Amino acid sequence: MQKSALSRYQEMIRASLNTYLENSKKGELYAPIHYLLKLGGKRLRPALVLAATDAFDGSAEDAVPAALAIEVFHNFTLMHDDIMDQAPLRRGFETVHVKWNTNAAILSGDTMLVQAYQLLAQSKPNQLPQLLQLFSTTAIEVCEGQQLDMEFENRTDVHVVEYIEMIRLKTSVLLAAALKTGALVANASEEDCEHIYKFGEQIGLAFQLRDDYLDAFGEQEKFGKLVGGDILADKKTFLWIRAHELASETQLEEISLALKSGMTNNQKVEAFKNFFETTGAREELKIRMQSHVDEAMSHLHACNLNENGVTVLQEFVNIIIHREE
Amino acid sequence: MQKSALSRYQEMIRASLNTYLENSKKGELYAPIHYLLKLGGKRLRPALVLAATDAFDGSAEDAVPAALAIEVFHNFTLMHDDIMDQAPLRRGFETVHVKWNTNAAILSGDTMLVQAYQLLAQSKPNQLPQLLQLFSTTAIEVCEGQQLDMEFENRTDVHVVEYIEMIRLKTSVLLAAALKTGALVANASEEDCEHIYKFGEQIGLAFQLRDDYLDAFGEQEKFGKLVGGDILADKKTFLWIRAHELASETQLEEISLALKSGMTNNQKVEAFKNFFETTGAREELKIRMQSHVDEAMSHLHACNLNENGVTVLQEFVNIIIHREE
Repeated sequence: MQKSALSRYQEMIRASLNTYLENSKKGELYAPIHYLLKLGGKRLRPALVLAATDAFDGSAEDAVPAALAIEVFHNFTLMHDDIMDQAPLRRGFETVHVKWNTNAAILSGDTMLVQAYQLLAQSKPNQLPQLLQLFSTTAIEVCEGQQLDMEFENRTDVHVVEYIEMIRLKTSVLLAAALKTGALVANASEEDCEHIYKFGEQIGLAFQLRDDYLDAFGEQEKFGKLVGGDILADKKTFLWIRAHELASETQLEEISLALKSGMTNNQKVEAFKNFFETTGAREELKIRMQSHVDEAMSHLHACNLNENGVTVLQEFVNIIIHREE
Repeated sequence: MQKSALSRYQEMIRASLNTYLENSKKGELYAPIHYLLKLGGKRLRPALVLAATDAFDGSAEDAVPAALAIEVFHNFTLMHDDIMDQAPLRRGFETVHVKWNTNAAILSGDTMLVQAYQLLAQSKPNQLPQLLQLFSTTAIEVCEGQQLDMEFENRTDVHVVEYIEMIRLKTSVLLAAALKTGALVANASEEDCEHIYKFGEQIGLAFQLRDDYLDAFGEQEKFGKLVGGDILADKKTFLWIRAHELASETQLEEISLALKSGMTNNQKVEAFKNFFETTGAREELKIRMQSHVDEAMSHLHACNLNENGVTVLQEFVNIIIHREE
């Protein structure tokens, strides 16, 4: 894929984040924070803050503190979610609670959440109340999403509507808030702020559905995580939920029998891929994903963006639709 | 003891907190928050916010959101500290991570920290930047204090200077910040803000030293916690550290031999009380505590408080000095 216009913003973020880390405190409490923030990642959310600021004729430079606040917040959620999910690895490296211990991951995570607010507070005073309100509302929603995700683990009757609401809270609202933060910094109109938020929300849903799809049908070489990971963990993804809803009695019996027959991991993954395919869940996911992209695009077109903004955000959409990792 | 003038503020806080809880969201994520906030406590920190606002001729009503922010923050630290310290009880009731589980305590705690910021953000926009800065700086310091406390558990060479710095961060700065928050809401002068902060910091140190004292020498009926709890947990309190520093070779040998002899809990508590007494650590604690009170009073007298303010804060000092629980 050709170099994305978004990459310029990603590079700005990498540079700002490095400066931030160089100037921040050292010591036991801060080591896990530096470690996690230096593991990398695509810096998509903070890059979107800057892109949105530029797109609404603001100065991306002004949005850097708020953008870093969102990146630090995102990494705080990763540090705490990894404890809750007992995840051993993050971006191919040991998670903080494994490399250090659970207490360190709790306390350094707490510190990151405060640091995120400290960064946000560097924004212009007249914009601070609105930025704060958006940030806190979003942070609470992300916690609610994680709560639902954990609750769903112990349920087999999760409806697809509940699933979509969970991924909206856990994933979409932060992308949406990133874009709206940029719009607020650029003093965009209330209408533009709402449209760019909705754009982010819908594209976030498409992003997460793409993730569900790639987990089952992605190519191992390109997908960052283990293909079939969700299947092996019995995760109630869109595919899992819809396949069970769409399946005939016979199909349900088949997959249930197959599960009892003591399969290898590979066989289980293949059995579920087949189940997702034959029930029509795979096809439905693609249609559903496209409908979120369409909805996103209608909000994007309703925004008063400058030309560069249209290009960047269209490229962002293409990355989401075509991403293989 | 006669009814404290502070109690009026404590009652205001109880009423506001009840209203806040009645109007806040319900559900799995919020149940642990309601549970912990309803366990009670003296509401000392938020009451000090209101008292300070009144003392500097502001309107206590204006300070209610910031006061609640500090109380919710304080309870957030309790929820997470209890996980880290593996504490089974809080105010005589099961801790959140025991009643629910660790994940619930992590996630609901995170939510509380965000809620604290939401409350703070209800302050007047022109005061928000200063209030935010004080709040975040303090929050980070409290995390640093907890970090030091955990580090000290694995060390036997903690110097008294380090201990004082730890309790300053873990306990004092939040009391100090509560008072300064009230002063900021009342638009007190920068000088007054600094003096009231220092007053809180010094009185906080006295408060914690009193806690160390009561743990060893308090009367069980009056002391809320188990007398001798710190001794049995081998906690490096002021008494422990100074007794070891002051002890003669003979005294060190005696306590070391006694420890090896397989004592009952009661015997261990008595042995250490004797050790604290004979080494002079107990006496030194009393002197040290008084010196922090004196330092606090000099800052209090330097403040331009109204008459009512002097009365309330003097009563607060008396509560600290004479408290038996």
